[in-house]
Amino acid sequence: MHLPQLPVLDPALPAALQAHQDDLTKPQGALGRLETLGMQLAWIAGTARPQDPEATILTFGGDHGIARHGVSAFPPEVTPQMVANMAAGGAAINVLCRANRIQHKVIDVGVAVPCPFPGVVDRNVVRGTADPLAGPAMTRAQAEASIQAGLDEVAALPGTGFALLGLGEMGIANSAIAALLVSVFADIEPEVASGPGTGVHGAARARKEQVIKDVLAKHQPDAKDPIGVLAAVGGAEFGAMAGAMIGAASRGWAVIVDGYIAGAAACLALALKPELKDFLVWSHRSAEPGAKALLAKIGIEPVLDFGLRLGEGTGAALAVPTLRCACAIMREMATFSGAGVTDNQTELAGK
Amino acid sequence: MHLPQLPVLDPALPAALQAHQDDLTKPQGALGRLETLGMQLAWIAGTARPQDPEATILTFGGDHGIARHGVSAFPPEVTPQMVANMAAGGAAINVLCRANRIQHKVIDVGVAVPCPFPGVVDRNVVRGTADPLAGPAMTRAQAEASIQAGLDEVAALPGTGFALLGLGEMGIANSAIAALLVSVFADIEPEVASGPGTGVHGAARARKEQVIKDVLAKHQPDAKDPIGVLAAVGGAEFGAMAGAMIGAASRGWAVIVDGYIAGAAACLALALKPELKDFLVWSHRSAEPGAKALLAKIGIEPVLDFGLRLGEGTGAALAVPTLRCACAIMREMATFSGAGVTDNQTELAGK
Repeated sequence: MHLPQLPVLDPALPAALQAHQDDLTKPQGALGRLETLGMQLAWIAGTARPQDPEATILTFGGDHGIARHGVSAFPPEVTPQMVANMAAGGAAINVLCRANRIQHKVIDVGVAVPCPFPGVVDRNVVRGTADPLAGPAMTRAQAEASIQAGLDEVAALPGTGFALLGLGEMGIANSAIAALLVSVFADIEPEVASGPGTGVHGAARARKEQVIKDVLAKHQPDAKDPIGVLAAVGGAEFGAMAGAMIGAASRGWAVIVDGYIAGAAACLALALKPELKDFLVWSHRSAEPGAKALLAKIGIEPVLDFGLRLGEGTGAALAVPTLRCACAIMREMATFSGAGVTDNQTELAGK
Repeated sequence: MHLPQLPVLDPALPAALQAHQDDLTKPQGALGRLETLGMQLAWIAGTARPQDPEATILTFGGDHGIARHGVSAFPPEVTPQMVANMAAGGAAINVLCRANRIQHKVIDVGVAVPCPFPGVVDRNVVRGTADPLAGPAMTRAQAEASIQAGLDEVAALPGTGFALLGLGEMGIANSAIAALLVSVFADIEPEVASGPGTGVHGAARARKEQVIKDVLAKHQPDAKDPIGVLAAVGGAEFGAMAGAMIGAASRGWAVIVDGYIAGAAACLALALKPELKDFLVWSHRSAEPGAKALLAKIGIEPVLDFGLRLGEGTGAALAVPTLRCACAIMREMATFSGAGVTDNQTELAGK
């Protein structure tokens, strides 16, 4: 399938950005993580003074045949119920997007039943994936269509210049699919990649882990064929998030990864387009135990550490104000030269 | 001196708040830290659905006689320069307050020279404290006046109902004073309480630690006489921040502690008014090494961990969106009963 090119980030810009940041009226490094975020966002924006970015979060819904094996604490009918809840504005992601000045769209890309709720975008490519223990979760055509849905939805968004796009999801049992994708693409053992999700413990968690191992044994997924992996294990919301990430980067936007599920989609997207990495901001360290191993493997530091395990895009929504602040610092702070403040950066060591 | 009473938080309310939060359309606990923050803020607000809080940050400026002993990486003239920078809107705290819809005031409570800059409030009680190695930093009357300045400034703020007040500071050498106050009030060894501040390393840092030990040896400060401690070591911005914290809590507001310096002021405020603790939100874990020990001693978890070491109230400003989100989740999310979402909170353990 055709994937868009990503803009090449100017390799000479970071040095100029660092010089600008070092001239801001504060001790060098005193804003910690906000400075590294500001550098990354300014690099993507291509300017030392990035504009205040518009932010959008897309929440993709999908269902999973693997749910029949009891790998989730909630029954599958919750997926369309929560899509309806999001359409009505009552879910956590709605609240956080309203609070943080973020546009939000809910997109059915793989829900098992129709979602005829006002505002829900119908991009359905599969009415719930098939059971990956019985065969492939999707056809290769469905897998490609899910990626294309994400690309198309981002291409249709308004806005010019630098912006933020966050990706989230709603799909009962999709933490099991995330574990599968993380196992394959990040080469992390299933024992580490599989976690409690929204509340699976004890014997049920052991069963979830066994199901994941059985799926891996059946399909022997090959990380060098990312679309083949997506077709084998699912699911549509992972393909759509990966497509949306690549689409956002192709527009020169920063991509905000939500939690463990969106992180698995990021693994898929990186397998398709490794140069995506510079565009990714990881919003938070999920409570899912595999998240720590995944972040270490990819080599990205998350922004927040709130013990979140909800998905929907909620972590991405919570990180948006911090990212806007990082841009504002680069854009609006006075400089030592301009403000008449004594810049005694000579450290006192050894004096 | 007279300190206002704090409202007594209803001991029966937390159970009702927990019941409300458990009915929100998400797995219980899935919003992690946002849930515990929402519970605390709703408790202070006295309702399960707290209003979207107005937020104000007060930045108090002060100078310190201890600076003559080379305990800071910046010279004392930077204090009024940075007050002027804040008056002009170019400091980090200005940028972050604008970005996050926060009112900001700069108040001279102890700067060594007059600060006749537009918008800077003159509440000066001392033109820089005296050298605490030579005698007391302030008189007892000056110490009380600094606390009163904080109380008065908060009493004069507009607003009815629940709100957020963040406290910050600007004062060259005040990380040395913070180390002194933390040593005394939190009973933490000077070796742990003293850190690099804005950039003091090696032999200079060892000298800073020795100065702190010498001041403690000279004054033998008694934590049971908090105003006596404040008079002995200084400084005015610490008294003002402590007064402002108590004043905010007396109005039923949540208090956002900034970094290590404001944390030392919180130690002073807690010594004056222990029941303040329930009103405190710790915005971030400062990069200053003593911060970790202090947080463990007080038993409060910070919201953010960005490696900040700037002060001014910047950490408090960065935490405000998260606190507003925590309130919005309590106030606006749909409930399982109301939204028609299946609440299968039965965990799958052992099934």
